[in-house]
Amino acid sequence: MEVTEEVVLSEVVASLVAFRDDQERPMHPEEPQRNLPSRDILIEAVELLRLVLFPGYCGSSALTGQVARFNVGSALDRARRDIQEQVKRAFCFHCKEPDPSRCPECQHKVVSVTQSFLSRLPEVRRVLGTDIQAAYEGDPAAKSSEEIVLCYPGILAMTNYRLAHELHKFEVPLLPRIITEHAHSITGIDIHPGARIGESFFIDHGTGVVIGETCIIGKGVRIYQGVTLGAKSFPLDENGNPIKGIPRHPIVEDEVVVYGGATILGRITIGAGSVVGGNVWLTHSVPPGSKITQAEAQQKGLFSQGEGI
Amino acid sequence: MEVTEEVVLSEVVASLVAFRDDQERPMHPEEPQRNLPSRDILIEAVELLRLVLFPGYCGSSALTGQVARFNVGSALDRARRDIQEQVKRAFCFHCKEPDPSRCPECQHKVVSVTQSFLSRLPEVRRVLGTDIQAAYEGDPAAKSSEEIVLCYPGILAMTNYRLAHELHKFEVPLLPRIITEHAHSITGIDIHPGARIGESFFIDHGTGVVIGETCIIGKGVRIYQGVTLGAKSFPLDENGNPIKGIPRHPIVEDEVVVYGGATILGRITIGAGSVVGGNVWLTHSVPPGSKITQAEAQQKGLFSQGEGI
Amino acid sequence: MEVTEEVVLSEVVASLVAFRDDQERPMHPEEPQRNLPSRDILIEAVELLRLVLFPGYCGSSALTGQVARFNVGSALDRARRDIQEQVKRAFCFHCKEPDPSRCPECQHKVVSVTQSFLSRLPEVRRVLGTDIQAAYEGDPAAKSSEEIVLCYPGILAMTNYRLAHELHKFEVPLLPRIITEHAHSITGIDIHPGARIGESFFIDHGTGVVIGETCIIGKGVRIYQGVTLGAKSFPLDENGNPIKGIPRHPIVEDEVVVYGGATILGRITIGAGSVVGGNVWLTHSVPPGSKITQAEAQQKGLFSQGEGI
Amino acid sequence: MEVTEEVVLSEVVASLVAFRDDQERPMHPEEPQRNLPSRDILIEAVELLRLVLFPGYCGSSALTGQVARFNVGSALDRARRDIQEQVKRAFCFHCKEPDPSRCPECQHKVVSVTQSFLSRLPEVRRVLGTDIQAAYEGDPAAKSSEEIVLCYPGILAMTNYRLAHELHKFEVPLLPRIITEHAHSITGIDIHPGARIGESFFIDHGTGVVIGETCIIGKGVRIYQGVTLGAKSFPLDENGNPIKGIPRHPIVEDEVVVYGGATILGRITIGAGSVVGGNVWLTHSVPPGSKITQAEAQQKGLFSQGEGI
Amino acid sequence: MEVTEEVVLSEVVASLVAFRDDQERPMHPEEPQRNLPSRDILIEAVELLRLVLFPGYCGSSALTGQVARFNVGSALDRARRDIQEQVKRAFCFHCKEPDPSRCPECQHKVVSVTQSFLSRLPEVRRVLGTDIQAAYEGDPAAKSSEEIVLCYPGILAMTNYRLAHELHKFEVPLLPRIITEHAHSITGIDIHPGARIGESFFIDHGTGVVIGETCIIGKGVRIYQGVTLGAKSFPLDENGNPIKGIPRHPIVEDEVVVYGGATILGRITIGAGSVVGGNVWLTHSVPPGSKITQAEAQQKGLFSQGEGI
Amino acid sequence: MEVTEEVVLSEVVASLVAFRDDQERPMHPEEPQRNLPSRDILIEAVELLRLVLFPGYCGSSALTGQVARFNVGSALDRARRDIQEQVKRAFCFHCKEPDPSRCPECQHKVVSVTQSFLSRLPEVRRVLGTDIQAAYEGDPAAKSSEEIVLCYPGILAMTNYRLAHELHKFEVPLLPRIITEHAHSITGIDIHPGARIGESFFIDHGTGVVIGETCIIGKGVRIYQGVTLGAKSFPLDENGNPIKGIPRHPIVEDEVVVYGGATILGRITIGAGSVVGGNVWLTHSVPPGSKITQAEAQQKGLFSQGEGI
Repeated sequence: MEVTEEVVLSEVVASLVAFRDDQERPMHPEEPQRNLPSRDILIEAVELLRLVLFPGYCGSSALTGQVARFNVGSALDRARRDIQEQVKRAFCFHCKEPDPSRCPECQHKVVSVTQSFLSRLPEVRRVLGTDIQAAYEGDPAAKSSEEIVLCYPGILAMTNYRLAHELHKFEVPLLPRIITEHAHSITGIDIHPGARIGESFFIDHGTGVVIGETCIIGKGVRIYQGVTLGAKSFPLDENGNPIKGIPRHPIVEDEVVVYGGATILGRITIGAGSVVGGNVWLTHSVPPGSKITQAEAQQKGLFSQGEGI
Repeated sequence: MEVTEEVVLSEVVASLVAFRDDQERPMHPEEPQRNLPSRDILIEAVELLRLVLFPGYCGSSALTGQVARFNVGSALDRARRDIQEQVKRAFCFHCKEPDPSRCPECQHKVVSVTQSFLSRLPEVRRVLGTDIQAAYEGDPAAKSSEEIVLCYPGILAMTNYRLAHELHKFEVPLLPRIITEHAHSITGIDIHPGARIGESFFIDHGTGVVIGETCIIGKGVRIYQGVTLGAKSFPLDENGNPIKGIPRHPIVEDEVVVYGGATILGRITIGAGSVVGGNVWLTHSVPPGSKITQAEAQQKGLFSQGEGI
Repeated sequence: MEVTEEVVLSEVVASLVAFRDDQERPMHPEEPQRNLPSRDILIEAVELLRLVLFPGYCGSSALTGQVARFNVGSALDRARRDIQEQVKRAFCFHCKEPDPSRCPECQHKVVSVTQSFLSRLPEVRRVLGTDIQAAYEGDPAAKSSEEIVLCYPGILAMTNYRLAHELHKFEVPLLPRIITEHAHSITGIDIHPGARIGESFFIDHGTGVVIGETCIIGKGVRIYQGVTLGAKSFPLDENGNPIKGIPRHPIVEDEVVVYGGATILGRITIGAGSVVGGNVWLTHSVPPGSKITQAEAQQKGLFSQGEGI
Repeated sequence: MEVTEEVVLSEVVASLVAFRDDQERPMHPEEPQRNLPSRDILIEAVELLRLVLFPGYCGSSALTGQVARFNVGSALDRARRDIQEQVKRAFCFHCKEPDPSRCPECQHKVVSVTQSFLSRLPEVRRVLGTDIQAAYEGDPAAKSSEEIVLCYPGILAMTNYRLAHELHKFEVPLLPRIITEHAHSITGIDIHPGARIGESFFIDHGTGVVIGETCIIGKGVRIYQGVTLGAKSFPLDENGNPIKGIPRHPIVEDEVVVYGGATILGRITIGAGSVVGGNVWLTHSVPPGSKITQAEAQQKGLFSQGEGI
Repeated sequence: MEVTEEVVLSEVVASLVAFRDDQERPMHPEEPQRNLPSRDILIEAVELLRLVLFPGYCGSSALTGQVARFNVGSALDRARRDIQEQVKRAFCFHCKEPDPSRCPECQHKVVSVTQSFLSRLPEVRRVLGTDIQAAYEGDPAAKSSEEIVLCYPGILAMTNYRLAHELHKFEVPLLPRIITEHAHSITGIDIHPGARIGESFFIDHGTGVVIGETCIIGKGVRIYQGVTLGAKSFPLDENGNPIKGIPRHPIVEDEVVVYGGATILGRITIGAGSVVGGNVWLTHSVPPGSKITQAEAQQKGLFSQGEGI
Repeated sequence: MEVTEEVVLSEVVASLVAFRDDQERPMHPEEPQRNLPSRDILIEAVELLRLVLFPGYCGSSALTGQVARFNVGSALDRARRDIQEQVKRAFCFHCKEPDPSRCPECQHKVVSVTQSFLSRLPEVRRVLGTDIQAAYEGDPAAKSSEEIVLCYPGILAMTNYRLAHELHKFEVPLLPRIITEHAHSITGIDIHPGARIGESFFIDHGTGVVIGETCIIGKGVRIYQGVTLGAKSFPLDENGNPIKGIPRHPIVEDEVVVYGGATILGRITIGAGSVVGGNVWLTHSVPPGSKITQAEAQQKGLFSQGEGI
């Protein structure tokens, strides 16, 4: 490296560091002396949980009786430690106590949330079993449940979502979104961890699916690639910032099917057993048993002019 | 870890293992004492084949004459061993013989399929060459064939598809889908390995493209992001399960162009040289040379009310 | 391996090597004795730059004063070396000089481009800060800027794009596209490095977004998943190849919002402050302050019959 | 690479391959189509066993009750599978059956040996506990048993030896020597797996220690760096090859101490409680309670002129 | 795995865990709920310090001015964090406070020791420079100082020793010995971190060298392979355990040379400028300027009959 | 990190960097802007050559005919590139040309030396075959040639030595010593690459063996652990530095055996067929057929008083 190159490098470093010290808030965490959760470790823990939830698909040993117990228990113990550390980082990030390891309140919450989360795993597993069954029944191309677990992006996305949603219920910051965004990056399926989704849910193909934070989805629902369950618009507070947390996404009742590319916006209700056709744009509630095509949606004014923009 | 934490962990393990032993079929493979194919090893083998098919893009040595032979041969030998093992696992998974290594029928089929698959590589390579050429001719932003091979997701997706399709033709279970889903996770392009796609095929951008199991696509076809070549609906058998394997996806003839977001559903035929406009929703066949816009599709009833839902 | 297996393998190798020697251009680089840029090393360098641009999010040490300088400087030095080597490979690939290390012109350009690129980092950082702020203001689900940096795919895509665009301005071949395609594979957001995008840009969800090579986007623009800013069609030269580099993508002025699934095609202008509704298909310019819904687009002929196909 | 370079490379390859095909036996295994045991996998399995034998030193979780059971059981299950595969390779290497997986005798022996080996682990662990205690009592520099387990090369060497010796007792080929040689490479302590060594054995410093194949060592023996327990000479058979397996190394009775650099050669007996001084050269038996210095050894003719050469 | 195999595995686990719970002390740390120092992380930190001490030998960038500062500073910051954590684990292992993170005394000591250790690095570096110079002057085979730093095991051993000795001076438990034993395993040179060694020290070849805990070595000393600076014997306390920490190893004054295989035992003094011949066995002090051969040692009674055993 | 910690760190860095800039020569290479050879890459290349020399022991594929050629050729091609780069770095380190890539003399030498080195591999392989045979004939504990190749440290040391010696003959700086020192660290066998060693050479156990730079060893020689073939003393030049390169180590003729711990010093000759007993100290030549014991050596004055010190 020549002298001028070195000068340039030093100047850039000085500029980057100075910038960081005195100007822009969003470029660095508010409390730099606290560790943010580690995305990599959290994702590894999720992979361990996938192993625990689908033991036969990942390991290569006989999975019966005592040995299964050893392997599941060992993976779970490792996942537990990693998750507990990340939960701690997530909670402590905004804690007022200067040394979070001395904040007994935080400490207790961290242990208790991690335990409660682990206790939910058998139920998560049961519900994922219904999702796999729904995929088998909902896709003529599905040859076996092994194929579904190994290959279907919808199952990967739902596993991450169902784990993230449990953490979301305990109001753990950051971690749930990291987990669902990891699935988003692999599958193109973007489910907010705050959404509530019933059992036997099937997403086919999946790329481009968006399910918003306040969605409520019943049992036995099936959706296809490119479906958006989104918000129409959102009120701003006096500072012009969006008001956070208002219910603004659809309620989709049991046994609804939404075909590819359909867009359903706003706090509307799609009645049980309805079928929403491909590419339909829908901003009004429809009663149970409806069958909505593009033409119908327009004729019936199910999307109002001026809305959804 | 405190005592209560340990108790919780033990209970969760007991619950997960008990659950697995006696209740839900889809959560674990039917024959737990047999190894499922390993996704990781299969994908590594596909990467070795990519090296073999595009030697200049991956290695860093002169690729002429004898040395090329050494490097291609060595990579191919390694890929061969890994693929043969995975083919064996895929076939043996449902074999009746308790110890598959003693089933001479399986053993013979495994060797024979792997050999036949390898023999197809030069042809796969030739066809991929036409795909690259099609990309160069079909995208004004493409500066060189090096850029296309290194950067275009469509080429990655087609390489995986064309390899997977060869395995699919030999009726190898599971592996073809693992290979195409791997490309799907990287590119957002979801091609079922059962589809039949002619040479000089170009997918631009690609995110959200879905090409169904029974599609038949001619030569020189070009499609854009978000295009679905899907099924309208599917008949159920007496148990309410979809009947598997029925032709239900479009036939797209030579030199057709399908613009972004278009949806073509059902066993219809898009005649040679046709152009399907962006966002068009099409469920009826069109003759060769058609130019279909959104408006036309609606006027001509090319998508029937009530269909496609 | 039996004898016949070995024969098959040898024949396949012979066929692959022979094929490569004498037939198809696109399957191998034009100058096999020159090294193509390494995708893996370039991506590692981009990750180092992400560390430099968002220091608090990646490292785990106190990031104040002198130590920040050490860590940022060290990461930048490493990135500099890797990028310089890849820039050299990119430029030398088509250079006429047989031994590029002896081409003083190339050598000088490589050093100078790398330096200029590094000098742009503080500005890249400043602009990314405005993008993060725009996300916070544009998404009611965003809880903190930490969540945005750690989880939002739009920020990852914009970081890669803004780095790639700087290299694109210096006319470095191949590297910019490798960098944006890497983000595309993770996020489903496909931004051509040639596009020009103003500050405070926010892409929500993002899967399926396409932004073409000659787009010009103002400040404070917000777009959603599935939006295409594309070209309508492209003129061919006398050989039937597309003419490269012609302005053919939209100009989107300041403070425009484009909702999910909208498609805007051709060298048209979307006037400042306009809102383009979801799924709208738009091929004509609209004045500032327009609000375009699907119905309006059709009524006002904003997409002409026959176009966009 | 220039043409001449390529020619040289090809010639070297041809020469190496030709050579291997028709000339020298020792350069390649006798049955090239059978896999030799993998040194790397065997060593990994030994590391897993070290974890099982010293659980608190390697893991980082609480090691009580149920969780200890999970972690020990899971590591043991993994080690079991790897060891069984390597035992199979070791036995099958010289088996006459063309396809060893079909030789029921081999198959049965492999399973049975692996099980028997695992059953010995608790006893191996008990004896290693006595070795650690002996180190603590035998070295004034030892501060704690943690220091001994973490730092003392003698403990590492004895762990490998005691595991290897169990495999040696079952006449498994190759594996025992690979395991002790691995310890040799780390510690400089070379113990043949065939030696028989009682409990409470302590080797201090250890570099240069050699303990031969037919040594028999009692309880509570202590030796220092550079000690050789070797053979004087060995008879040859009619072909001039050494006759394998004859007892030819010393018997060292209980509570003997051998100081640094001492050399004890031949099938002699060092009586219980004896002390052999540093650098002593000894080729004759000595009664219990002897104290042998260099001078004494010479005076008493304890090493005969002409011997030991 | 068959049923009997599983039973065996479970029994072994039960036996191993039961054993650990109730019998042998040395097999597990006294306080299993506290983490022992991690050997791997400590060794990585030592490698970072080697980089800091010999910057030009490890990195690949120009090492001048500002950039050297960045790289050295960044490596040092990383090493600092890792060492501080290991120092904490080492101190806390025997601390009475149930939660060591709440013991302010420990906490303060950890920070202070780590800082003091770092402050010693420039002096460590200066002394290592004299060791390298001594090697160059002491070995006719040494061609350049680069060769010495890159290849000579004595330099690696002295670097680890000089770092470990600094930690030993601050009475950090366990870590110093882990660091010197790591060098022992690579070089066969076993230096106790408690020894005191002056500058310009050169060990040639080195395998088998042992330097005991209470050795005091002057400046400019040179020793060869197989040299022992050890203890003759050691007094036991009333329980029969060796009394720890008594001075029991030689004092070697300035400019002494000790040739290969020599053994010097006990708290004796080798006067300045003496030369001890190869294989000499020495247990009495010798005045400055002595030249001791094997014959002389015997004649002059420099090793007493009955000693050294 | 608190403020005082940061200050300490900065000061240490400043001190380390300042020190390096202006004081001690040996702490950094003379030409910091040139890359030293990379030990890691060189060692990887040696491992590739081990694979090429012992193909059946490392790979896992059938090693016959064409496939062997592919694998050997590919490994050799990779090794060639890495070695050529390291040879270049080794030669260029002291070259006067500011940009070594422009020094045609260097460039030519690098290519030519690498080629010549590769051309020697078949001969290296042939000689290693005789070494393996010698081990089989020389050790009653050796069960098979597979055991010797997989486990015997002497074979590993001789492979590294024989490769290093070829590079040494071409006067490549640094690399030969790095290669033999790597073997030294694993085996405790320290062979200078300058030594000349005939075929059928066997080192048993090996720890502590030292073979000096100017040794000449005939065919069929066998030596044991702890044997030194060293120099007595060395003349200094007018500056007090040792004069480099003078013949100063023993000549050992054909079929000599040297037992464990023997030390042979100076430019003496051990006549063909001689046997040197264990621990013998020898500084005078002996005629062919001699049998030297410790007693004899002393009686016959084969080591003079005052020598060897």
